[in-house]
Amino acid sequence: MKDIILENQSLGKQSIKFANPPAIISRSSVVGELEGNGPLSSYFDVIESDPTFGKDNWEEGESEMIRQAAQLAISKSGLQKEDIKYIFGGDLLGQLIGTTFGLKDLNIPVFGLYGACSTCGEALSLASMCVAAGYARHTLAITSSHYGSAEKQFRFPLEYGNQRPLSATWTVTGSGAFVLSSTSKEQPMLNYPRIVGITTGKIVDYGVKDSMNMGACMAPAAADVIYQALEDFNLKPDYFDKIVTGDLGKIGSSILIKLLKDNNINIEEKHFDCGVEIYDNSLQDTHSGGSGCGCSAVTLASYLLHLMDENELKKILFVPTGALLSTVSFNEGQTIPGTAHALLIEKE
Amino acid sequence: MKDIILENQSLGKQSIKFANPPAIISRSSVVGELEGNGPLSSYFDVIESDPTFGKDNWEEGESEMIRQAAQLAISKSGLQKEDIKYIFGGDLLGQLIGTTFGLKDLNIPVFGLYGACSTCGEALSLASMCVAAGYARHTLAITSSHYGSAEKQFRFPLEYGNQRPLSATWTVTGSGAFVLSSTSKEQPMLNYPRIVGITTGKIVDYGVKDSMNMGACMAPAAADVIYQALEDFNLKPDYFDKIVTGDLGKIGSSILIKLLKDNNINIEEKHFDCGVEIYDNSLQDTHSGGSGCGCSAVTLASYLLHLMDENELKKILFVPTGALLSTVSFNEGQTIPGTAHALLIEKE
Repeated sequence: MKDIILENQSLGKQSIKFANPPAIISRSSVVGELEGNGPLSSYFDVIESDPTFGKDNWEEGESEMIRQAAQLAISKSGLQKEDIKYIFGGDLLGQLIGTTFGLKDLNIPVFGLYGACSTCGEALSLASMCVAAGYARHTLAITSSHYGSAEKQFRFPLEYGNQRPLSATWTVTGSGAFVLSSTSKEQPMLNYPRIVGITTGKIVDYGVKDSMNMGACMAPAAADVIYQALEDFNLKPDYFDKIVTGDLGKIGSSILIKLLKDNNINIEEKHFDCGVEIYDNSLQDTHSGGSGCGCSAVTLASYLLHLMDENELKKILFVPTGALLSTVSFNEGQTIPGTAHALLIEKE
Repeated sequence: MKDIILENQSLGKQSIKFANPPAIISRSSVVGELEGNGPLSSYFDVIESDPTFGKDNWEEGESEMIRQAAQLAISKSGLQKEDIKYIFGGDLLGQLIGTTFGLKDLNIPVFGLYGACSTCGEALSLASMCVAAGYARHTLAITSSHYGSAEKQFRFPLEYGNQRPLSATWTVTGSGAFVLSSTSKEQPMLNYPRIVGITTGKIVDYGVKDSMNMGACMAPAAADVIYQALEDFNLKPDYFDKIVTGDLGKIGSSILIKLLKDNNINIEEKHFDCGVEIYDNSLQDTHSGGSGCGCSAVTLASYLLHLMDENELKKILFVPTGALLSTVSFNEGQTIPGTAHALLIEKE
């Protein structure tokens, strides 16, 4: 036991530092047409113009998108699917039907996860914990969201033509998948991006009730986990090339920066929000920006890890953010708590 | 790295054997009135006659039940909530609102999980993986289900008075929580039940589409993971005092036994299904038996671990089972795949 504790460190209140950081040996991003017309277009692996991905409805389309992302990440890794011991995955739909029907034919053990739009952080955290403990040589982390299936579930079916306030975000149609592999002192795999540590978020509730302003619901959770990650790892924001949040959008981002400034932490120069960057709001009319489990997943899998490949980024704090609500909790008058999970992703 | 691999073994295709098995140092069970009138009555910690647990509706009642179960398990362990590094939890409701609102005030990092009624197995698996790797000294695993909130979500609100076929199961109102703590060679904590290994299930789809016969949907997944656990750990059914499934009910149990017999494995003498045992069908009119994440959780937390306390059981294979569907997937004509996760729980 003591060998393990000496190797993988339980750090501070909420963090773990891996002695042998799992390497992201491959990844994939499969997105819809709107994302494919956005500023990150050239970095995505697959852009599909059919919103149902050749299937009969949005939900089956989302499953097909997940299936393609999983298979592509595995094939790009050079592994066979039999080499992947566990999948850690989830989506936004009730009872995770996107993930279930997308992954069922792969015949790989699955841990189903739900952390709203923070699920990419949760999946990468658990997949790396599993690999770094020696439980598996290879795992797959995967998440997705789909504009059509999410609007139908959380708001109105698209045919209804509901108007949306400017504070609302646009659910990204996209699935991002990552193959994580074990490293060792002998084979540290320094030429890959590696997950050197994680900070797992609490459920943070500031009492916000506006489901059309999810950025405001999630910003306190993002501030909380970023503060704790810096504390647990004893780092300053300057350590990172970028501090990346999932889908706070414009409004949530400004709240996050203010909340951290109030605690004497200035991340303004380092901050990057996937929701702000994935669309060009002046051309694409996506209001406060992108959201959904797929937003941070495909932005990491495409643009951000590309910058790491090119050595333009070496160290990022990756913080997917989630708003914890359902139509039932919302209609019963509950607040909308947020959560967020942080990962330290580094390349030597 | 090699120290870790030597210690915690990645076993076979789907399993992990822990070098220092996490101990279940405390547990709690909070149930509703029907469960409290059933045959396991005297083993539950709290029996609540108000279906909304003093709150305004079923969903808030479920959250209150979860809150009580979490707090009780922590207080029975003698720890403070600050000692629990992570919670692994989930429920049946869309977007896990039961868990979110039940746990948010505890201020402990949460990994949200969804494995339908198998979630208790998923939560105990991940919580023990976390502890056995040295990532945390103490974790909490918790799951729940609630008859009122589940019927409203999956079928009809109770006021509608829908009739149910005899193959249907009855969602258990109950939440079970478990505090898992690290052990070592010096302090093996042999007087506690310990999780010595796990086998994680795949998504298994035999093409069944009858949502009123969930036992039949889940039995193939249970057979698959039991077969694999015996294979990976190189054991025969005789090794165990009981092989416990979650909520197959009468019909699912008979299918499970037949499927394993077809593969030359006879578990008939050892088999115990929580769904069959939690109600007295001759008096309680619960048709095929109990179901829901809470069913296996409270049966383990109360009756089964009591038998381990009394040394009447020493070795069990605990296999919560789940049916992976939503009303959306069902209404779109999808099948109902199953999954199941196995844990080897032993006391010296």
